[in-house]
Amino acid sequence: MNRLRYSVNLSYEIQDPTGDFLLIVEAAKTARQSVVSERLTLTPPVDAARYTDPLCNRLLRIRANKGPLAIRYEAVVDIDHRLDDGMSLTEVPVAELPFDVLSYLAPSRYCESDRMMEFAMREFGGMRPGYWRVYAIREWVRNHVRFLSRSTNERTSAIDTIVERTGVCRDFSHLMIAICRALSIPARMSSSVDYGADPAMGAPDFHAVVEVFLSGGWYLLDPSGVSIPTGLLRIGTGRDAADIPFAAIFGKVESKRPFIEIQPIADPAAGIGLPLATTSAISTW
Amino acid sequence: MNRLRYSVNLSYEIQDPTGDFLLIVEAAKTARQSVVSERLTLTPPVDAARYTDPLCNRLLRIRANKGPLAIRYEAVVDIDHRLDDGMSLTEVPVAELPFDVLSYLAPSRYCESDRMMEFAMREFGGMRPGYWRVYAIREWVRNHVRFLSRSTNERTSAIDTIVERTGVCRDFSHLMIAICRALSIPARMSSSVDYGADPAMGAPDFHAVVEVFLSGGWYLLDPSGVSIPTGLLRIGTGRDAADIPFAAIFGKVESKRPFIEIQPIADPAAGIGLPLATTSAISTW
Amino acid sequence: MNRLRYSVNLSYEIQDPTGDFLLIVEAAKTARQSVVSERLTLTPPVDAARYTDPLCNRLLRIRANKGPLAIRYEAVVDIDHRLDDGMSLTEVPVAELPFDVLSYLAPSRYCESDRMMEFAMREFGGMRPGYWRVYAIREWVRNHVRFLSRSTNERTSAIDTIVERTGVCRDFSHLMIAICRALSIPARMSSSVDYGADPAMGAPDFHAVVEVFLSGGWYLLDPSGVSIPTGLLRIGTGRDAADIPFAAIFGKVESKRPFIEIQPIADPAAGIGLPLATTSAISTW
Amino acid sequence: MNRLRYSVNLSYEIQDPTGDFLLIVEAAKTARQSVVSERLTLTPPVDAARYTDPLCNRLLRIRANKGPLAIRYEAVVDIDHRLDDGMSLTEVPVAELPFDVLSYLAPSRYCESDRMMEFAMREFGGMRPGYWRVYAIREWVRNHVRFLSRSTNERTSAIDTIVERTGVCRDFSHLMIAICRALSIPARMSSSVDYGADPAMGAPDFHAVVEVFLSGGWYLLDPSGVSIPTGLLRIGTGRDAADIPFAAIFGKVESKRPFIEIQPIADPAAGIGLPLATTSAISTW
Repeated sequence: MNRLRYSVNLSYEIQDPTGDFLLIVEAAKTARQSVVSERLTLTPPVDAARYTDPLCNRLLRIRANKGPLAIRYEAVVDIDHRLDDGMSLTEVPVAELPFDVLSYLAPSRYCESDRMMEFAMREFGGMRPGYWRVYAIREWVRNHVRFLSRSTNERTSAIDTIVERTGVCRDFSHLMIAICRALSIPARMSSSVDYGADPAMGAPDFHAVVEVFLSGGWYLLDPSGVSIPTGLLRIGTGRDAADIPFAAIFGKVESKRPFIEIQPIADPAAGIGLPLATTSAISTW
Repeated sequence: MNRLRYSVNLSYEIQDPTGDFLLIVEAAKTARQSVVSERLTLTPPVDAARYTDPLCNRLLRIRANKGPLAIRYEAVVDIDHRLDDGMSLTEVPVAELPFDVLSYLAPSRYCESDRMMEFAMREFGGMRPGYWRVYAIREWVRNHVRFLSRSTNERTSAIDTIVERTGVCRDFSHLMIAICRALSIPARMSSSVDYGADPAMGAPDFHAVVEVFLSGGWYLLDPSGVSIPTGLLRIGTGRDAADIPFAAIFGKVESKRPFIEIQPIADPAAGIGLPLATTSAISTW
Repeated sequence: MNRLRYSVNLSYEIQDPTGDFLLIVEAAKTARQSVVSERLTLTPPVDAARYTDPLCNRLLRIRANKGPLAIRYEAVVDIDHRLDDGMSLTEVPVAELPFDVLSYLAPSRYCESDRMMEFAMREFGGMRPGYWRVYAIREWVRNHVRFLSRSTNERTSAIDTIVERTGVCRDFSHLMIAICRALSIPARMSSSVDYGADPAMGAPDFHAVVEVFLSGGWYLLDPSGVSIPTGLLRIGTGRDAADIPFAAIFGKVESKRPFIEIQPIADPAAGIGLPLATTSAISTW
Repeated sequence: MNRLRYSVNLSYEIQDPTGDFLLIVEAAKTARQSVVSERLTLTPPVDAARYTDPLCNRLLRIRANKGPLAIRYEAVVDIDHRLDDGMSLTEVPVAELPFDVLSYLAPSRYCESDRMMEFAMREFGGMRPGYWRVYAIREWVRNHVRFLSRSTNERTSAIDTIVERTGVCRDFSHLMIAICRALSIPARMSSSVDYGADPAMGAPDFHAVVEVFLSGGWYLLDPSGVSIPTGLLRIGTGRDAADIPFAAIFGKVESKRPFIEIQPIADPAAGIGLPLATTSAISTW
């Protein structure tokens, strides 16, 4: 088990009489992730409506008046990913997928899998289905796209990335998701906070990774290869980035870049260690 | 109230040892649409798994063996759309939208609303919010796009349509949905069977239309302008066409074009009339 | 040397009072291709203005009145491609390229080389420059794109093809041209008539191939791999298909598909043989 | 007549053993623009090869060694645009266009006119042909696109701009060019240095504007509306920005933003005045 202390500070300056915010920044509560303690502070104090959707996304809706708005969330979170042997994981035929997983086969805003069928079949169609095919897709994306900050923007989709071959974690993930879906492997995006990111990547940040459905469960892979996946604290889960923006803002608002901190809390006596790299498949639900 | 007799025949030739099908062709059962009688016939007889999702889409999952597969569905369906006065309908601020409606503000595969913000604000931002603004969007789309069969394909999205200005009902709908979302008006697609289509459009076919969320409910508009909306029999409901293909096919399969029939059954004594054009807003749920 | 008899029949029905046509269908006259005899017949007889541009494209401009217009061109053409040893051909540094070749480094309508820099460098940047690198690009395109009639249209560009991986000769050529330019290798399109096309491709048709500039000259490669390049009769030369449409039509005109015939005329006594496959580099100017 | 003093400073740091540069920064010499004096200074002194193409673009080709490279060009330039009455200018039918103007009807990298036919015909097809239709296109672009620095990049094309409706001068120009070509009006891009730019636009910069072919000559329009067109000093002329980059760089080179100065030199005694706004059509050749 791993324990992480996470905090995020968001700062806004609302310029209209009121501004509306939909935020997904709180730690998700799932079978493998529990919140030990948490606190949300809004300055000035305003009401926040809360909603947790079926994917465990914890949506905060806030209406605030003209002027500054600061949002601070801090939490101590336990994560306990199960590690499975990739060799044992199989792709699930469409005929046997749970019905609520079928929607992760369809193309979405940033994952135009419908346009990548021929490519996916040519490149990966001949491989033996299973975790190692999925891992081969992850490796392909990691090896054919260059991590390049600010080379893309919030409109960039998998189509752009397969052409231009540069991007950030979100672009790597969208491309990997699109390829999986083109092969009829359900895939979706998880946004997380990344402990253990390559320091060359700079300050901690929200980090987008991929989940694929194999052998009845969702498994996590990081096609950008910059994180230690066992140290990922889950925030949101969705079909792609369009489903889980950390902040959707309505009205004229100036935003500062979010400030995020994350630290592991090791307590060997309690069986709590540091997140470590693993070659196992990481089961996230 | 209106009563419609609807049937669809699908014909496939499966070339792999097995083929998998996800079909959404049965009449939805909603508060405003009820199924009087129905029958599904599969030839050869094969098992079909059924699932009705939260949007009332009735998914059929079929695995069939090599060879021909014929699917026939026929039903008698009552629809009873409520007609409201458009003048009374208002847009709902983001701060007051039901949480499960928020996802219809996000961009999706065929409705890249995130790229149309400036256009939408310039063209419609100054109009008074409400049904008539939505109707103005419908009129704009109808007047700026030409209905042209076979000018587009299943990869065509709202971006393509705003550039090329030709398309079929699905393209009209994707563009209207994208514009609405860019203005923070929740919008989605309904696939239906169209009684009353302009005979110039040829044989009855699946018909894509738009639903927008106003004053707490969903209202139906047809931006292609070829249907009598009160005569639309609902099949599917989703964020866009990616969510509700009438047939998603996995494996090597030859398809024939679906053959659809639809007829009104008038029974004045029972208060059952013919679908009529209306200038009222049509509430669909 | 090879001798080919070529004819093309174009049929139009002009529906406006007049229709304007810009045609590039006549055999080009170059250092390696000479016209033994030719005849152009317009029915009804109308005036045709002629213009031969610096790339030897023979433009016909015709204004015709309402009604049918038939255009027949037939020619006997000698082609005498020089065969060079690919091993001896080198890429020319930008600093040494002829000035009038520089424009073939720039992106064009259907060859968005500016978006493929990273891809081209990753895939081909480490190879030794020269004919064999260009040949490797040709092989990559041939092996990663599927020839599929009617899978694309006249709006399809190299970007689409690298995503969707299907197309016809023109799409193969645009993709190869874009990759070459991304590596600073001048490349352009030649439209031709193809003797020796794989019969599976059907009737003779206009065929798009690629020319690259190496060692001071232009060399021809066919990335779709369906032709015998020594049997290609040159019609047009340009940056991409936008420069050399066989017919640009202005006004409301109904077109029939062009009907093309091409046959080799062998005359061994005169040293005239049949076009043969070759592994040599084919110098076209 | 107007006289302008223009200078540009370019600063590079070459990181490979050598770097190659293709520059188009010198004042064009045309029938309406003459160079009174000019000086090019390269530091360190390196050879520059020169080439003036048929469109009067003055290409400089430079190969420099590792280390810093500074390029300074300064000139005094007289411009004498002829002002014509727009009412007298007509569109030229395709059948009567000079042959070397026909290429400005074709789509190009950043001006995908082939995808905008329906839009152009709907919006402008019913207007009376001539200068005022062209002016209406200019007004449409200016009124439907927002000038927004850094909202676009060097990959942005007319398709993107008609969707996203933001951009800089180059984007405005590409969109206007595409619309003109879709209506069979020859159009191309001129890059210039802008005296008289709205000071809100910041320091002087290269400025992209449009030329259209009417009544036998080329006329200049600025769809971004930020310049005084009579004060534009011509640098380059081409089908779109792909033809006339002010600097194309080959090799690993760090670039600073070019520093440009431009000032009018008034000398009333010699008949040399300040550039003034005009409602006349500006003939540029």
